[in-house]
Amino acid sequence: MTRAIRTPKVHRVRTELDALLAELDVGDPVPAERELAARFDVARETVRQALHELLVAGRIERRGRGTVVSRPKLVQPLSLRSYTEGAERMGRVPGRQLVGWEDLRADADTARALGLRRGAAVMRLERVLLADDERIGLESTYLAASRFGWLREQFDPATSLYAAIRSSGVVFGAALERIETALPSPREAELLGTTTAMPVLLLNRRTVDTADEPIELVRALYRGDRVAFEAMLVDR
Amino acid sequence: MTRAIRTPKVHRVRTELDALLAELDVGDPVPAERELAARFDVARETVRQALHELLVAGRIERRGRGTVVSRPKLVQPLSLRSYTEGAERMGRVPGRQLVGWEDLRADADTARALGLRRGAAVMRLERVLLADDERIGLESTYLAASRFGWLREQFDPATSLYAAIRSSGVVFGAALERIETALPSPREAELLGTTTAMPVLLLNRRTVDTADEPIELVRALYRGDRVAFEAMLVDR
Repeated sequence: MTRAIRTPKVHRVRTELDALLAELDVGDPVPAERELAARFDVARETVRQALHELLVAGRIERRGRGTVVSRPKLVQPLSLRSYTEGAERMGRVPGRQLVGWEDLRADADTARALGLRRGAAVMRLERVLLADDERIGLESTYLAASRFGWLREQFDPATSLYAAIRSSGVVFGAALERIETALPSPREAELLGTTTAMPVLLLNRRTVDTADEPIELVRALYRGDRVAFEAMLVDR
Repeated sequence: MTRAIRTPKVHRVRTELDALLAELDVGDPVPAERELAARFDVARETVRQALHELLVAGRIERRGRGTVVSRPKLVQPLSLRSYTEGAERMGRVPGRQLVGWEDLRADADTARALGLRRGAAVMRLERVLLADDERIGLESTYLAASRFGWLREQFDPATSLYAAIRSSGVVFGAALERIETALPSPREAELLGTTTAMPVLLLNRRTVDTADEPIELVRALYRGDRVAFEAMLVDR
């Protein structure tokens, strides 16, 4: 485990860079490491550390050989709405890319969560979530084949799954969502267009309809440099 | 930026380790790297990668020179309740350690959020959050001195801030919470007893009373290997 030391110099450079970024627009190039090191009169390694912090925070991003100012994070409301609705509310164009659609047998946990017998047929749909063609999430959805097998024929995985489920008359009732942070595996990092050193938000969700019958289990990873979640909490 | 390669071997070792951990109890020692490498007939580096994944996921933790099985993560409900109430619900003993209590002048953002004039007096209370004496979070709370200056004399920072605020007759009405992931700075990592390579959950919260008057701004970091958040989402 490496333990970087953030010297007061890095702190000063970070403050200078924050001021510099505040003057730039989204997509503007960030000056090169060497140039910044000369401007702030510090070692290139110092600049590199400060730039790495900004990269993890999603303030800047690599583009080709250069670095540019990022768009603000996509802020997703924690709600029973779909990813699609959340992205559209933010003025982003949502998209989904099918990674795989598998038929599985439910293990003990999946069976319990979906109200099935162990070994029952379950479909696993894995998709990359896009915002304006940028990869921002990776979502695996588990559905009982007995209830949702019709999706195989009638659902286009490039569209909203929630819209398809609703069109069949199912009404979403509630979801229990667990939010954690993780580092992606190399496979997940590849699919997300990120690296294994960049933290992701990990969401596990179980959704039921208004009769409390299970709809889906979801495991979703969202790039921590691209997505934030927001919740309005009211006393109950 | 390094990009680790997770070979099929790491995947197999991870599966074997998951099975091994399922047989062990919280606090039990995990066999040494060398022993595991011999048992699974792989290189020590392969075992090290799989153990690192388990460390980030909070399944195991370092204790002295060894490694032991961790307690399950503390699952905090996303709600208007305090950290104290959340921890107690999980059967954990909550604690708080004062890091610092500063008097500041509100910058433009803080002033707007707290409904103050720029430059108005603001108190910043920074505390480490403990669960059974384990450091799991670091919380900075910003409060208007004009409304909450009395806390300086009457509040013990080792106790629940929300309980103190409520005792003065203030009723919490709503909070807007933003959830992100980040890597801690070296100072934050030190205070949290973790490292700068271990992701944290970053929460920014603005709380208002039932008359919509601002109470506090909070910036809290929670160790990703020790804490998860949970929300029950209901259609509205």
